[in-house]
Amino acid sequence: MRKLINDPAEVVSDALHGLAAAHPGLRVDPENRIVVRGDAPRGGKVGLVSGGGSGHEPLHAGFVGYGMLDAAACGEVFTSPVPDQILAATTAVDGGAGVLHIVKNYTGDVLNFGMAAELAGDQDVEVATVVVNDDVAVEDSTFTAGRRGTGGTLFVEKIAGALAEEGAPLDAVAAVAREVVERTRSFGVALSPSTVPAAGHPTFELDEDEMELGVGIHGEPGRRRARAGTAAEIVAATLTAIDTDMPLSGSEVLVLVNGMGGTPLMEQYIAYGATADWLAYRKATVARSLVGSYVTSLEMAGCMVSVCRLTPDLLRLWDAPVETPALRWGR
Amino acid sequence: MRKLINDPAEVVSDALHGLAAAHPGLRVDPENRIVVRGDAPRGGKVGLVSGGGSGHEPLHAGFVGYGMLDAAACGEVFTSPVPDQILAATTAVDGGAGVLHIVKNYTGDVLNFGMAAELAGDQDVEVATVVVNDDVAVEDSTFTAGRRGTGGTLFVEKIAGALAEEGAPLDAVAAVAREVVERTRSFGVALSPSTVPAAGHPTFELDEDEMELGVGIHGEPGRRRARAGTAAEIVAATLTAIDTDMPLSGSEVLVLVNGMGGTPLMEQYIAYGATADWLAYRKATVARSLVGSYVTSLEMAGCMVSVCRLTPDLLRLWDAPVETPALRWGR
Repeated sequence: MRKLINDPAEVVSDALHGLAAAHPGLRVDPENRIVVRGDAPRGGKVGLVSGGGSGHEPLHAGFVGYGMLDAAACGEVFTSPVPDQILAATTAVDGGAGVLHIVKNYTGDVLNFGMAAELAGDQDVEVATVVVNDDVAVEDSTFTAGRRGTGGTLFVEKIAGALAEEGAPLDAVAAVAREVVERTRSFGVALSPSTVPAAGHPTFELDEDEMELGVGIHGEPGRRRARAGTAAEIVAATLTAIDTDMPLSGSEVLVLVNGMGGTPLMEQYIAYGATADWLAYRKATVARSLVGSYVTSLEMAGCMVSVCRLTPDLLRLWDAPVETPALRWGR
Repeated sequence: MRKLINDPAEVVSDALHGLAAAHPGLRVDPENRIVVRGDAPRGGKVGLVSGGGSGHEPLHAGFVGYGMLDAAACGEVFTSPVPDQILAATTAVDGGAGVLHIVKNYTGDVLNFGMAAELAGDQDVEVATVVVNDDVAVEDSTFTAGRRGTGGTLFVEKIAGALAEEGAPLDAVAAVAREVVERTRSFGVALSPSTVPAAGHPTFELDEDEMELGVGIHGEPGRRRARAGTAAEIVAATLTAIDTDMPLSGSEVLVLVNGMGGTPLMEQYIAYGATADWLAYRKATVARSLVGSYVTSLEMAGCMVSVCRLTPDLLRLWDAPVETPALRWGR
């Protein structure tokens, strides 16, 4: 196992220690393993809380900051945070206007965020919840009833975060988050597996010339194995899966070409070039794009494409200033 | 070979195609394989040109933009750009105030940038050159007479770019670039090799429990092979090598913990935590830090640490606004 770690049992704590040292503007609570905006809670502002298993960095802690999340709860690698962590994050950011939970659709996350919302309710903190289920690959999966939440989570956190920053009330922030979920689809492809440090062996096996089409961000099986093709072929399979579920022709779209953690940026740009060509051919207009490793699966090689069909209002909120460790512009 | 590419012979062209599609504010010349700021040349502003072999993305093309480079020349993977490319980049950004070439110290780069500077001189474009040789690992190397240029190149491009943006003359911009080189040291460690697409096999072999201490960004040999240790041990070896060459105790420093391309961000933060601890113990003050995969070696796993001993003026220039695909703040 070739990893830059100290102790497989301490990777989350050690990464949070580094995050705290690198970003003094964030408050890292090592006991609860939550990351909170330095200025939280802000009176009258809806608080945004997300979280999930670790190993998907920069998601979610790297998106805590101005214009995006107020707090992130960090579970063990590929394991949901427990309700107490989520509750601590929720109460830390409640400024009296309520808190939105942004939850990727995995059984453990949905359960634990739900319990935390109930506990927060007992403390008179109003909580709304949006479940992200953007992955069109499979209907049910290893850890999921229904579709998985993957790369599109970034869109939800950015756009809902921008509306919350404007001072919108909880029901409006929740509504825009749900709108983004409804208009977003993702599909991922793995060229190599990743290894959970505490397990010490790859989550799955792939032959040298194989790829997993529709892979999940924990290495869960997708639709099928296939012989690894060119970037253009991989992107075509990816976008065809998305387009079949949500027709893209004639739309104005926001596109994320997301490296899964072990894929070099050069290859991500090659994939983005193929993505732009495919979308142009299908008469979809790319209004905004993002290329990088934002929603990862440890050192998995491969990429995921996420597409959101924009409205003028969603575009405005996407463009709004953001200042987090991993996403930053326009402030 | 598990790569997200179309054709091993076309990876640079295909990546530039994607870069152009993703960043319409840049001008990409596919024939010369150069990337130029959309607003270049700017009258009276010193132009900054860098470049080198591809495979180190986002270096250099990802650093073209406001407050940093004016153009980058992109060679084949791990191969210097040819003089004609560098000349095209130089003339494209010359606004009458001269052009600074920022050259990583590899024999081919130094030679080809030198020839391009001569050719530019024939066209009455004044060129100054700074050679970056920050890597303390080895004195001479596979492709180098003298020390290699690696992660610290980012510091040189950012700080000299900020001074050029302020309107400083060529000699001042060159002087600050040389000052950064003199005050910067780097050292890298590989946990796995990378594979040049056109070659199809890894640049070197490492056993599962081995690491290469002092590795170069093309997979060149470093100081020695050793049994892979913990992140804290790896960082201690790295910083000890730097500190032996340039004592850090009592300094105010800028630190880059740089993923080599295949190392997840979680591990980079673990390495940064160990870095911050080591520097605090040695009474060096971290004024600014950066964690991410900025100067890479395709999908190599491992990390490199670069340290610059700051002055108040260098800190001010580091903090100045920058807006490029890969580095962006404060504008």
